[in-house]
Amino acid sequence: MLYMVQMTVNKPHDIDPDVWADIIAREREYGQKFMKSGQFPHIWRVVGKFSNVSIFDVESNDQLHQILSGFPLFPYMDMTVTALAEHPSALKK
Amino acid sequence: MLYMVQMTVNKPHDIDPDVWADIIAREREYGQKFMKSGQFPHIWRVVGKFSNVSIFDVESNDQLHQILSGFPLFPYMDMTVTALAEHPSALKK
Amino acid sequence: MLYMVQMTVNKPHDIDPDVWADIIAREREYGQKFMKSGQFPHIWRVVGKFSNVSIFDVESNDQLHQILSGFPLFPYMDMTVTALAEHPSALKK
Amino acid sequence: MLYMVQMTVNKPHDIDPDVWADIIAREREYGQKFMKSGQFPHIWRVVGKFSNVSIFDVESNDQLHQILSGFPLFPYMDMTVTALAEHPSALKK
Amino acid sequence: MLYMVQMTVNKPHDIDPDVWADIIAREREYGQKFMKSGQFPHIWRVVGKFSNVSIFDVESNDQLHQILSGFPLFPYMDMTVTALAEHPSALKK
Amino acid sequence: MLYMVQMTVNKPHDIDPDVWADIIAREREYGQKFMKSGQFPHIWRVVGKFSNVSIFDVESNDQLHQILSGFPLFPYMDMTVTALAEHPSALKK
Amino acid sequence: MLYMVQMTVNKPHDIDPDVWADIIAREREYGQKFMKSGQFPHIWRVVGKFSNVSIFDVESNDQLHQILSGFPLFPYMDMTVTALAEHPSALKK
Amino acid sequence: MLYMVQMTVNKPHDIDPDVWADIIAREREYGQKFMKSGQFPHIWRVVGKFSNVSIFDVESNDQLHQILSGFPLFPYMDMTVTALAEHPSALKK
Amino acid sequence: MLYMVQMTVNKPHDIDPDVWADIIAREREYGQKFMKSGQFPHIWRVVGKFSNVSIFDVESNDQLHQILSGFPLFPYMDMTVTALAEHPSALKK
Amino acid sequence: MLYMVQMTVNKPHDIDPDVWADIIAREREYGQKFMKSGQFPHIWRVVGKFSNVSIFDVESNDQLHQILSGFPLFPYMDMTVTALAEHPSALKK
Repeated sequence: MLYMVQMTVNKPHDIDPDVWADIIAREREYGQKFMKSGQFPHIWRVVGKFSNVSIFDVESNDQLHQILSGFPLFPYMDMTVTALAEHPSALKK
Repeated sequence: MLYMVQMTVNKPHDIDPDVWADIIAREREYGQKFMKSGQFPHIWRVVGKFSNVSIFDVESNDQLHQILSGFPLFPYMDMTVTALAEHPSALKK
Repeated sequence: MLYMVQMTVNKPHDIDPDVWADIIAREREYGQKFMKSGQFPHIWRVVGKFSNVSIFDVESNDQLHQILSGFPLFPYMDMTVTALAEHPSALKK
Repeated sequence: MLYMVQMTVNKPHDIDPDVWADIIAREREYGQKFMKSGQFPHIWRVVGKFSNVSIFDVESNDQLHQILSGFPLFPYMDMTVTALAEHPSALKK
Repeated sequence: MLYMVQMTVNKPHDIDPDVWADIIAREREYGQKFMKSGQFPHIWRVVGKFSNVSIFDVESNDQLHQILSGFPLFPYMDMTVTALAEHPSALKK
Repeated sequence: MLYMVQMTVNKPHDIDPDVWADIIAREREYGQKFMKSGQFPHIWRVVGKFSNVSIFDVESNDQLHQILSGFPLFPYMDMTVTALAEHPSALKK
Repeated sequence: MLYMVQMTVNKPHDIDPDVWADIIAREREYGQKFMKSGQFPHIWRVVGKFSNVSIFDVESNDQLHQILSGFPLFPYMDMTVTALAEHPSALKK
Repeated sequence: MLYMVQMTVNKPHDIDPDVWADIIAREREYGQKFMKSGQFPHIWRVVGKFSNVSIFDVESNDQLHQILSGFPLFPYMDMTVTALAEHPSALKK
Repeated sequence: MLYMVQMTVNKPHDIDPDVWADIIAREREYGQKFMKSGQFPHIWRVVGKFSNVSIFDVESNDQLHQILSGFPLFPYMDMTVTALAEHPSALKK
Repeated sequence: MLYMVQMTVNKPHDIDPDVWADIIAREREYGQKFMKSGQFPHIWRVVGKFSNVSIFDVESNDQLHQILSGFPLFPYMDMTVTALAEHPSALKK
């Protein structure tokens, strides 16, 4: 079941650089775990912004929230979730 | 799996009254079918508006879109879908 | 008498973690008091956000404000209140 | 129990003038019925707009929606309802 | 001459509690002076918010600004002023 | 007493050209009556838009609404009214 | 080179049903031509709306506009284009 | 003196195709007159929209409005004008 | 050549009061220099806000930016600039 | 391939002036490198704002993001990217 999640990072300008570097490193590792499991099949950078467009493929709304709220950057991000359905014009796979 | 759907009806001011009455009657019958099946457990009127707040309990995003796009008023409504998850403070049922 | 209340928490990024943990613990206890009394029948988490959709069943606008403004998180939340009425298509209970 | 209702009239530019004059006449009569009963204690025109700010004093959300949706202009108005409570700084009456 | 003023308080989360308590006390006293003079006939709390809807009855735009800018909370509030006129459907008093 | 009024004209694309030309002619005559009386001291065109920025100098909110609602284009305009006061840095005249 | 395009269809309520059916049929055929060529790798329906989220993989901004403006529904759609770049956390393929 | 003008065309869906084709042809001729004179040095299409980003180089606000309001599409366009100044980091020419 | 500039001051709540008082004093002096030269013919306070509506009469966009960016409050203000042209209904002076 | 990028600088009011002066100096040098290469053909100041309108001419979305995210001010700027295409009315060069 697919969802588009648009994430924007709001970095506090006075945050300790080491704290931030640690969050970013854990963020990357955390995200790749779900990319490898197939639950996070796409992530793209929005040009000119500290934002991304992500596609998740999960079993339920609850599972999606569990994954999203576990991101180390979660307290520093605005997320917008859009539930997706199969489009009638899509090619059958 | 729960979703909040906020629906606002935009009635064209020049629509034929009989056509509209027929749509409204079918709308009610269509909605009640899902209320009875348990997939549409709540609907509330927003005070002062031709709008409602609805809660759906369905199996997937695709099933939700199938139900929503089948409403006779679908071409005349703006819908906003919010995916919901269990809240950690909710009482266990 | 029903109301939908949408609550979004704005956590200050530089707040003392112990102060915050204490607020969250009291928040949970405060909310559950009204869930048990029947005045706060529903709370759902919005997927991907530190937000919720809540339904309150109270006797008056004044009672609702008294409950809402008493939440320990009240100074850190944006709340939007929507007055609800019975929907003509709802099943009679 | 008090509510502020902000109403904006959207007059279709191609509506029949006699139909419109009839709606406006019935609107006035309908509104004054509730002004006289004390349920509609204030109405003010917003300067420069076909809008008003109204205060209602009713027993419930359901009663308010019943009154508002009965206005002859209801299909031609956008309404925004704000639930009001007693302010702690107000003079005791 | 009537105006609606919508005021929203933005309390800085790191302000000294004694400073704040002093501002709030002076705010109440300042507002009641104008309530007693008849220039500030109504104030209502917006349910769920640190906001109010106020009605002022003053002689001029300049007098209104003088009163509003004198509120001790003025530097911490967003205010929106709406000029009001007599409504043609209002009952004659 | 001064007000800024921002007016935007929404011309219906299917209106009869003669009807429109008549409205525009009467609009000009109506506006100039108040320019000559000193109640409408400034009007400027907003570059690139069918909009203007106007300054009115009138005795009351009610008088302003009476003038504004009498414009032949009133049913075809969005108006936004801003109450103005003397600025403390202005040169004394 | 990737782009996200969000498309929302605004169907005129008074359009001839045969004209509309013809547009929709040609729309599907037109879109599938680019899905088969690999230039239109993803399309998803937004749940509850007559909208989609689409991903395009094309050689230039000009090529993208040529494709988008050729859609039979183009005159009836609002489109928002977001330029995408590789995300540093994405798995290498 | 430079200005950015963002123009969006709103084509009425029920306009006569011949009338529209004539407007578009005159629009092109009218615009190119100012491109050739150097007063309209840049025009770009916004990808996915019936919109453009234009740069004008004119002598005054009045001259700009005279040019813009003369476009045959003017009654069908929303225009936003942004006054531009020399940027301190620009290369000297 | 005329422009409307709407300025809103955002005073940081933790700024040193002496620093602020010095900025305000220099702001007043700076503004009055241009009022006296005729380049800044009007300034009005927006009732209820730390905002103003200003009219500038300058020779070019560049001159306007030079004046505006020199205001001591410039780093603490949001400014919106609207290019103005002569209105066809204005009285000839 | 052309893009319009609108950049707005948000200067933290409590940033160290030397740190800021250093960022601004490096910003200028960084930007001029791309102006000289032809990839950054235009930059204009928006009158009254700490904002600019920039035109980039690059080979891909990825290259644009690489350039934009390298600006020393990137963490302090909001950027909006608009993909541009050739306009059918532009003069052939």
